[in-house]
Amino acid sequence: MIYFNNDYAEGCHEKILEALARTNMDQTPGYGEDAYCAAAAAKIRAACQAPEAAVHFLVGGTQTNLTVIDAALRPHQGALCPVSGHINVHETGAVEATGHKVLTVPSEDGKLTAAQVEQVVVAHRTDGSFEHMAQPKLVYISNPTELGTLYTLSELEALSETCRRLGLYLFLDGARLGYGLEAAGNDVTLPDIARLCDVFYIGGTKVGALFGEAVVFSNPALTEDFRYLIKQHGGMLAKGRLLGIQFDTLMTDNLYFKIAARADRLADKLRAAFRARKVPMLVENTTNQLFPILPDEVLAKLAEKYVFSEQQRIDETHRAVRFCTSWATKEENVEALCGDLKALL
Amino acid sequence: MIYFNNDYAEGCHEKILEALARTNMDQTPGYGEDAYCAAAAAKIRAACQAPEAAVHFLVGGTQTNLTVIDAALRPHQGALCPVSGHINVHETGAVEATGHKVLTVPSEDGKLTAAQVEQVVVAHRTDGSFEHMAQPKLVYISNPTELGTLYTLSELEALSETCRRLGLYLFLDGARLGYGLEAAGNDVTLPDIARLCDVFYIGGTKVGALFGEAVVFSNPALTEDFRYLIKQHGGMLAKGRLLGIQFDTLMTDNLYFKIAARADRLADKLRAAFRARKVPMLVENTTNQLFPILPDEVLAKLAEKYVFSEQQRIDETHRAVRFCTSWATKEENVEALCGDLKALL
Amino acid sequence: MIYFNNDYAEGCHEKILEALARTNMDQTPGYGEDAYCAAAAAKIRAACQAPEAAVHFLVGGTQTNLTVIDAALRPHQGALCPVSGHINVHETGAVEATGHKVLTVPSEDGKLTAAQVEQVVVAHRTDGSFEHMAQPKLVYISNPTELGTLYTLSELEALSETCRRLGLYLFLDGARLGYGLEAAGNDVTLPDIARLCDVFYIGGTKVGALFGEAVVFSNPALTEDFRYLIKQHGGMLAKGRLLGIQFDTLMTDNLYFKIAARADRLADKLRAAFRARKVPMLVENTTNQLFPILPDEVLAKLAEKYVFSEQQRIDETHRAVRFCTSWATKEENVEALCGDLKALL
Amino acid sequence: MIYFNNDYAEGCHEKILEALARTNMDQTPGYGEDAYCAAAAAKIRAACQAPEAAVHFLVGGTQTNLTVIDAALRPHQGALCPVSGHINVHETGAVEATGHKVLTVPSEDGKLTAAQVEQVVVAHRTDGSFEHMAQPKLVYISNPTELGTLYTLSELEALSETCRRLGLYLFLDGARLGYGLEAAGNDVTLPDIARLCDVFYIGGTKVGALFGEAVVFSNPALTEDFRYLIKQHGGMLAKGRLLGIQFDTLMTDNLYFKIAARADRLADKLRAAFRARKVPMLVENTTNQLFPILPDEVLAKLAEKYVFSEQQRIDETHRAVRFCTSWATKEENVEALCGDLKALL
Repeated sequence: MIYFNNDYAEGCHEKILEALARTNMDQTPGYGEDAYCAAAAAKIRAACQAPEAAVHFLVGGTQTNLTVIDAALRPHQGALCPVSGHINVHETGAVEATGHKVLTVPSEDGKLTAAQVEQVVVAHRTDGSFEHMAQPKLVYISNPTELGTLYTLSELEALSETCRRLGLYLFLDGARLGYGLEAAGNDVTLPDIARLCDVFYIGGTKVGALFGEAVVFSNPALTEDFRYLIKQHGGMLAKGRLLGIQFDTLMTDNLYFKIAARADRLADKLRAAFRARKVPMLVENTTNQLFPILPDEVLAKLAEKYVFSEQQRIDETHRAVRFCTSWATKEENVEALCGDLKALL
Repeated sequence: MIYFNNDYAEGCHEKILEALARTNMDQTPGYGEDAYCAAAAAKIRAACQAPEAAVHFLVGGTQTNLTVIDAALRPHQGALCPVSGHINVHETGAVEATGHKVLTVPSEDGKLTAAQVEQVVVAHRTDGSFEHMAQPKLVYISNPTELGTLYTLSELEALSETCRRLGLYLFLDGARLGYGLEAAGNDVTLPDIARLCDVFYIGGTKVGALFGEAVVFSNPALTEDFRYLIKQHGGMLAKGRLLGIQFDTLMTDNLYFKIAARADRLADKLRAAFRARKVPMLVENTTNQLFPILPDEVLAKLAEKYVFSEQQRIDETHRAVRFCTSWATKEENVEALCGDLKALL
Repeated sequence: MIYFNNDYAEGCHEKILEALARTNMDQTPGYGEDAYCAAAAAKIRAACQAPEAAVHFLVGGTQTNLTVIDAALRPHQGALCPVSGHINVHETGAVEATGHKVLTVPSEDGKLTAAQVEQVVVAHRTDGSFEHMAQPKLVYISNPTELGTLYTLSELEALSETCRRLGLYLFLDGARLGYGLEAAGNDVTLPDIARLCDVFYIGGTKVGALFGEAVVFSNPALTEDFRYLIKQHGGMLAKGRLLGIQFDTLMTDNLYFKIAARADRLADKLRAAFRARKVPMLVENTTNQLFPILPDEVLAKLAEKYVFSEQQRIDETHRAVRFCTSWATKEENVEALCGDLKALL
Repeated sequence: MIYFNNDYAEGCHEKILEALARTNMDQTPGYGEDAYCAAAAAKIRAACQAPEAAVHFLVGGTQTNLTVIDAALRPHQGALCPVSGHINVHETGAVEATGHKVLTVPSEDGKLTAAQVEQVVVAHRTDGSFEHMAQPKLVYISNPTELGTLYTLSELEALSETCRRLGLYLFLDGARLGYGLEAAGNDVTLPDIARLCDVFYIGGTKVGALFGEAVVFSNPALTEDFRYLIKQHGGMLAKGRLLGIQFDTLMTDNLYFKIAARADRLADKLRAAFRARKVPMLVENTTNQLFPILPDEVLAKLAEKYVFSEQQRIDETHRAVRFCTSWATKEENVEALCGDLKALL
């Protein structure tokens, strides 16, 4: 079987394996206070053009989301997010488990607009019973979103301006950030993100690492005592250097960006194949996730050879499914799939 | 000014004041372990025809909701409720503050259907990523709802049957229960509720008491160690007898039901006055809350003499507002309002 | 039976009952935004000589402790308290249920010293693994303590100075504050407490009210959005005026202080009776709680007529027990007990 | 510098590196549902002689402790542990952050006795105010303890019998379990632990793995929905296979036990060197951590060449420090240290 069902089916980029082997018997301080972490953080600050930013490394996305949000909010405050946001749908109530309400806003494409944030916040503040409702204080977005869509620079600037004017924090989940930065048509850079968000993360798990997310705090108010919170939420790796070594490798010679770009080009190829057969998409995007809508019998045929993930039923005879590429996808597998699509459709 | 804006603007029924004065210097054990609480609980069990039920007294609605839900759920479990449910909208994230996600379901009239519960639970259990989502385990409904609507007996039976079949708890918030039981057309009795729900409460705060909610557990699995949870959540009154004395009074000679019925009749009179002037309602109901949709200039006129609460803007020139009657409403005030409506409309 | 077992066995002072009856049918805004609460808060600010202080009313002690502490702390921070502190021993882990560790310090007499606070905080800050330990950020003391002992002015000044220098909040639980302020030998005034603490409360439940604690915030940093937290933790009474009416009554004509003083004088009389018979005390104090150590057979005799509470076993034939006076204690009962002690010992 | 300061200073055993490299490009399901995890779990069940046990893999110790305890307890319940227990001292209040009180018991050697458990539980259940105190429900022990001491089989049997009789869960933190099982004089086997505890874990992080703890549930009541809790607390690794691959390697050909035994033998050698110079120990033990008490000037000399960790000051001129061996310790370094000790003392 050929797996296109997600972007975490393999281990890691070979350079990371090499680095782990090379450094294996070095003796270092624990808990992320080693030289590898320091070096990786320095490279990330440089890539973000954010020399003052604080960088912390965590193991996974849910852990990062719950820890950052818990660090940022007082007990009565909530996180605004699009209804399809990962923290709302796929983290088993992890944010609520830290005591905070997730305040959802409708969204068709996985994105949130500045106007929606403004509307919710103004409605809250002008409601006679505002103290009876969780207070919106942080805006959670992901880029790319769960649906593989991207914020444009002007959208992100509007969100940032709105949040700052209203006194909210802007937090960007970048679990698939590389695939967004390298996508066709993307006009947002890493320094833009560092400049416009209070905190965001560069996802490693889905972009070449065994595991790991690099959290970048532009807003120093959010960094205070953050390591206590990592530890409290069980996210402080004894051998923290594993995160440093991985991100140091990814941030060397633009490896992170190169492998993400390659995955995006393979996704583009697959996207062109669907488009050539006039397959409609659940949502248009340019990143590493594709959501074609296909007849059940075609999907049954494809499922004999390929693994993809179910997204949603469209009608009695069609489903939207998800195909992902990643840093690990083999070009030959994409070509095989393109060929089979041509034959089947 | 005449207040119709809510059902908690006055103190308590005079018989409660008398009982408090009469018993004031009695010396009793603290924390609800006194004879007044025992007597009140016995009367409630009798009224519910539920001789095995456990009865606990708490001070207020939010406290009751958060304590019952926290007692019932494991950390990864959530409470299903209509999107307009009090726990979702007006409790400052109190349920989330105990760690649990509130899982909302769309609702126009404040009610939840058995089919909705079934659909959500089946969707959860058949999703490949079910462990990545909060698990629905308790259904929270209110009767009357926030919009003053009522469940019919067959609706409640269907909900109960569905919950039991699927292994969910059914919890009914009865903050305004009296006004529901005595409403025109209601076909649900207190014993029905005790039989069909796992846990529910009889609201005192809005129906004649200074404060207090009597929680009735039909399902013994939910009662275990419940007093620890009351204490932990700050709901255990040192002078717990105050709750016993109040509910003992309300449950004597059907006082609770009589004063609720009187409020409902006054609401009916007001409802008839609106209907006579063909005033549309945001939602049709038969309980003590009315949600007429009126032109802004009529509302401005009314606001010179009456206090009512804002519900929502309907269009550029109309708003839905809320008028409440209660155990304390004076008939003369209702008549004044009916007269003014006739004059204004 | 005559009850000396606690200070919450009766209802409330008759003037409060009268005030409740007098105001019963007034229509007021809910949730503590009424004129009675405003008037009570003004009188409290005046009594504290703290014109800028914020005053909030809550229903009970555990609720107040958990809400104030949760409002003050970030997730990784803990509350320092003597090992016998109410939050550590008798609140069913209410503070922990909000996510915060209670950090205990040894204490023989229920008090904490400035030196202990300094030692714990310095030890924390100089430990190589400080991020692996909950961070001390708030000092919780009670005055009188659980053992009826009192802080002297110089002790309280030292604690306050230490907390401010180290950046910790000082929170004083005044569940029995009246009995402390009026105790023989006490040199601390209400304005002293307001000046030296960041937040404290004036206990009503045990000093003449049906229920209620008046929280006074001297430090404005702790007040922000406090009403959201009251609501979230289920402490916001719909008929908040009940708290205003009670504290307004207690703060009028020094009623609170007069009834506390009377209870202390009755305790003094009882104390003298024990002393006259050379009965040792578990701890020396001058407030309304006495902890005599008596032979089991004497206690058995006393238990035929009086109710007292168990404190701890001292040896095979002796136990320390607790006798309380309160605003409600009848002089004749104290005299009866004094007489019986004389006869028995 | 030569590091003896902890047992997590290096990466992992070479066989694990090899296994990671060998399997790197395999495509597997995520989140621990792969064949490597299944194989590792099977080997663990076999080693435990517990064919019915459930096995879950988590990333680190704090994460495991907080997740297991949160899964086991209802909100009002607490975890009993020796005062020096890791959850009490070095996890930044992680257990409290899930809402549960840690109930400490005095201990000199890091261990808890069955008699202590019995005493605490009986005291709780017979206290008139039991509902005002967190309810002890789980006993947390570590083996080896923080001080490197071990439970004997009879001690563990007594604890287990007491817990079962009283209805408490017994949870054993085995972060250093290998070093305990292979210690001189140890009479407890892995099957004993599986039989006597409700849940325990086999620590990988400190015994040859890059990271990872294998949790073994003997009591099926604790396993229900455990994967939801792992996910909610941020502990579910997308590439869960990394844990399976590591534990599969460690459990093959007894690698885990062999490398632990080697570390213990090196510790024995070091222990003998201290004993030969009559160096007192803070606590006697036979595992991989040593706590010698040495004069400050000797420590200053040692610190020029070796890194060790500070434990506690003993008097004005002596400190107890910690030296650890591990799976990665080089024999030549132990010999160098033994030689230097001989020269210095």
